[in-house]
Amino acid sequence: MTEDWKKRAEVKRDAILAAIPKEWRIENPPNEKQVDVTGKFVQQFLSEREVEITETTADDIAKHTVSGTWKAEEVTRAFCHRAALAHQLTNCLHEIFFDAAIADAKALDEYYAKNKKPMGPLHGLPVSLKDQFHVKGVETTMGYVGWIGTFEGKTGTGKEKKFESEMVKELRNSGAVLYCKTSVPHSLMTGETVNNIIGYTWNPKNRNLASGGSSGGEGALIGLRGAPVGFGTDIGGSIRIPAAFNGLYGIRPSTGRMPYEGMANSMDGQNTILSVVGPLATSVPSLRLVMKALLAQKPWLHDPLVHEIPWRHEEERQILEHTGAIGDASKIGKLSFGVLRSDGIVNPLPPVCRAVDTVVKALEALGHEAIPWEPPSHKTLLDEGIKTWFFDGGTDLKSAFALSGEPMAEQISFYSSPSLKEFTASQIAATNVRLREIKKEYMEYWNSTAEKTSTGRPVDALIAPLAPFPAARPKMYSYYGYSTFVNVLDYTSVVVPVTMVDKWVDRRDEGYRPIDDTDKKVYESYDPEIYDGAHVSVQLVGRRLQEEKMLAIAEYVGKALGM
Amino acid sequence: MTEDWKKRAEVKRDAILAAIPKEWRIENPPNEKQVDVTGKFVQQFLSEREVEITETTADDIAKHTVSGTWKAEEVTRAFCHRAALAHQLTNCLHEIFFDAAIADAKALDEYYAKNKKPMGPLHGLPVSLKDQFHVKGVETTMGYVGWIGTFEGKTGTGKEKKFESEMVKELRNSGAVLYCKTSVPHSLMTGETVNNIIGYTWNPKNRNLASGGSSGGEGALIGLRGAPVGFGTDIGGSIRIPAAFNGLYGIRPSTGRMPYEGMANSMDGQNTILSVVGPLATSVPSLRLVMKALLAQKPWLHDPLVHEIPWRHEEERQILEHTGAIGDASKIGKLSFGVLRSDGIVNPLPPVCRAVDTVVKALEALGHEAIPWEPPSHKTLLDEGIKTWFFDGGTDLKSAFALSGEPMAEQISFYSSPSLKEFTASQIAATNVRLREIKKEYMEYWNSTAEKTSTGRPVDALIAPLAPFPAARPKMYSYYGYSTFVNVLDYTSVVVPVTMVDKWVDRRDEGYRPIDDTDKKVYESYDPEIYDGAHVSVQLVGRRLQEEKMLAIAEYVGKALGM
Repeated sequence: MTEDWKKRAEVKRDAILAAIPKEWRIENPPNEKQVDVTGKFVQQFLSEREVEITETTADDIAKHTVSGTWKAEEVTRAFCHRAALAHQLTNCLHEIFFDAAIADAKALDEYYAKNKKPMGPLHGLPVSLKDQFHVKGVETTMGYVGWIGTFEGKTGTGKEKKFESEMVKELRNSGAVLYCKTSVPHSLMTGETVNNIIGYTWNPKNRNLASGGSSGGEGALIGLRGAPVGFGTDIGGSIRIPAAFNGLYGIRPSTGRMPYEGMANSMDGQNTILSVVGPLATSVPSLRLVMKALLAQKPWLHDPLVHEIPWRHEEERQILEHTGAIGDASKIGKLSFGVLRSDGIVNPLPPVCRAVDTVVKALEALGHEAIPWEPPSHKTLLDEGIKTWFFDGGTDLKSAFALSGEPMAEQISFYSSPSLKEFTASQIAATNVRLREIKKEYMEYWNSTAEKTSTGRPVDALIAPLAPFPAARPKMYSYYGYSTFVNVLDYTSVVVPVTMVDKWVDRRDEGYRPIDDTDKKVYESYDPEIYDGAHVSVQLVGRRLQEEKMLAIAEYVGKALGM
Repeated sequence: MTEDWKKRAEVKRDAILAAIPKEWRIENPPNEKQVDVTGKFVQQFLSEREVEITETTADDIAKHTVSGTWKAEEVTRAFCHRAALAHQLTNCLHEIFFDAAIADAKALDEYYAKNKKPMGPLHGLPVSLKDQFHVKGVETTMGYVGWIGTFEGKTGTGKEKKFESEMVKELRNSGAVLYCKTSVPHSLMTGETVNNIIGYTWNPKNRNLASGGSSGGEGALIGLRGAPVGFGTDIGGSIRIPAAFNGLYGIRPSTGRMPYEGMANSMDGQNTILSVVGPLATSVPSLRLVMKALLAQKPWLHDPLVHEIPWRHEEERQILEHTGAIGDASKIGKLSFGVLRSDGIVNPLPPVCRAVDTVVKALEALGHEAIPWEPPSHKTLLDEGIKTWFFDGGTDLKSAFALSGEPMAEQISFYSSPSLKEFTASQIAATNVRLREIKKEYMEYWNSTAEKTSTGRPVDALIAPLAPFPAARPKMYSYYGYSTFVNVLDYTSVVVPVTMVDKWVDRRDEGYRPIDDTDKKVYESYDPEIYDGAHVSVQLVGRRLQEEKMLAIAEYVGKALGM
């Protein structure tokens, strides 16, 4: 068996590559020879028209396809081509089904020709999916060798290559075209994307760095414009990390807003901190477009965990109507922000500090205000919250690895510790109570900021790092506190790209005195030479179920930054 | 210690009685001498004006107090008096704080006089609370002797008699007057209300029977009109059972609609099936009034588990605007109902069958339709759901009883079994996954009814028994499936009173062939002589988070029944 898994992984890896048409095959230069494969590098393999299509945002593509000025088939072919290049350059795909996609696109064009109207608001829009979604015709391996040829590790279920996740149906109903599934780290429990099938997913903007995780394939693919919009999942940062590392917008909605029904998962049934599903894209209107389209499908009628909350235009109206007038805070209404410069556990690296400053200054220049964020202890919150990832003592993951005998990646070796034990019901209950208390305390802190703002309202959003580094270097992702505190609180968070690392500006402080060993490890991972050119992002955190408002604010902030 | 608990219980029991002014003390005739203590019996101890006030529904009282035509103090005094009588006749109170209530009422009257406006939509309205709410100045024992003089069993917390639950604050902000806390069964895990402090809470309409549980004090108190509206909680039927047994309306909202923050509970932290809080009252507009008032306080800003869903008039508008025209289904729009006559596990007793028929006939006569409800197996659903009550193997309850050494009531003796073991995290996760699958299957069954209705829509609500019996006889509550399936699904359910047992009509079927021993036990508990005159109710079950719509339908059905 030990050698068997290597062979099975190789066969699968080859099958993925083999699904790319010969004419789209390229020579992939070594990472060190071609660190940045975005922009001009990838464009050389594409026609002008393909570049035009693939560098259009999802919302603008939809305007063309919905109005019929662009054909679904042409758009789909362009993205299939670019996704094929992206995979060859970064290892970002687990499943390729271009033929099915082109057939679907043709059917959409025929539908349009016949009915003189689009199938739905996503008519003809290619959408990529993390390899947790089940799509008919292809597998879901989630990076596990033992899942190859199975349905979530089981055989003979009758669901293999047939069953579709709820959101997949809803995307199809809305007219979206599905064409590929993207890479994940096996287990989903790390911010780097690595598994024994496709290897390591690289950051296309800087191939010294991780594309992020666990939705790292989405990050790399959309970062290279191999998809205009795609869906990831997030239990500790897994949508936002790849969004941030790849210069994208990405939203972690609160639990119960978007349909997770029928997706594969790790440690399914742990229901203290739930993984959520949400989109990544190159613009905020793209995120809004797909979320609105999905909510228009009334997912609460098909997913028992989705709340009946349709898209609430009222929550975004005031900000959206005045985003054009970014010079005039009096129109949009003055906004108040909290600023978290450090959580006191690990300090962000110089480029991240600069990104936070950049956002604050841009907003202040427009007449808004930012006050220091002095919340209840993040350490307490994180210590309690992270317990949930270990409730089952690694039982679920170990059984997935045992299916094939493949080894765990070093990045998740903490799950192989023999000292891990299953929590008892009483221990889980105590954690749940403590987490509810922590949420209550944090919520009341948020309320209390009304006393510190000049608006008399609590802050509208929190500006915070998403990770201590712009992106992680391989095997150096050692601290998750900045992304994970949001999951513990179940808040809404949108990643906003801010700048890029400039080795001449973002220098190391050689006199830096680390807080402790964890902080030291992070600081020591920073090398301006290696990081030069990497994307730097922040997150804007809102209260629970504030998706409309937070997207509006993120769009406004993006415009303020000129992004 | 063994004898000590008896003494502590007696002291507390006496203190409750002692809080009733001497002039309100009465002689309580033996149950068998005076089976029904409602109506004329209790009225004999009240003035005409007191009867007028206390027999007005909460929504009509609020109209008077909000417009200033009735004074808060007069209303409060009347309800204090009647609550004092109710306690003496049924043992329905754990805490009495009439003096504080009268002082609060006077302050409200002064506020009104000074500001020429009410404090809020509940200005001057007395509201009773189940003894899980913390209210300053009084204890919360939840029926545990070991909790007397503590905060949830702990001493030195600084919260004793000071801390208030979130909803208590919101009720006060809305102008409500709090004056008593009502009895519960220790553990909260039974449909009868019994504990070692106050003994047994009797059904005022028929003192052969239970007032229900676990919000049994609420049921008895409101049943006797000692409160116009009050709040209970429900994890397996605990709001609806006392509502049904006492001829009241009561709603079990879905999880996340009403604020539970800061309340005492059993097995706190079990978060697979959550207990929810909701009102019981003598009319639907009374339930609506308090729910709307609470949502107007934006509880999602103070309770991390409440969803931001304000009252949605749109969901009730069409039905409400035409409830006057109940003869005309074309105006209200034809409604479709599912009818569950039996869950196949235990058959409802004759009066309950008659109540279900009565509702169906009344609706059909008005032009609506009812189709048989043939859902996925309730047995499977219940077997899985009820596991959640045993996740901790009784650890929490045993520790509460151990505080004083008091014995568990026979009604919950299943928790003292030495064979109970704590579930592991993996076992809990497997249960959570299975329950999600069960919910999904049930939801799709509901969707599928669109193919069977004449409206082309899925059914608007399900008509179902709330319990197999009109009320339980002491120690004979042996089956909870009719109430509990709603909690497992997290659906909205409103209890509607329908009729009363008539021993001449609701006869035993001496040839009845029971399904099995459980069914036999229930059937054998039915004795028309004992049950004569008892309330008989049904529940109207709606999908998750359908509170507005379900209240509108319940009000409509109530009018159709002439209740």
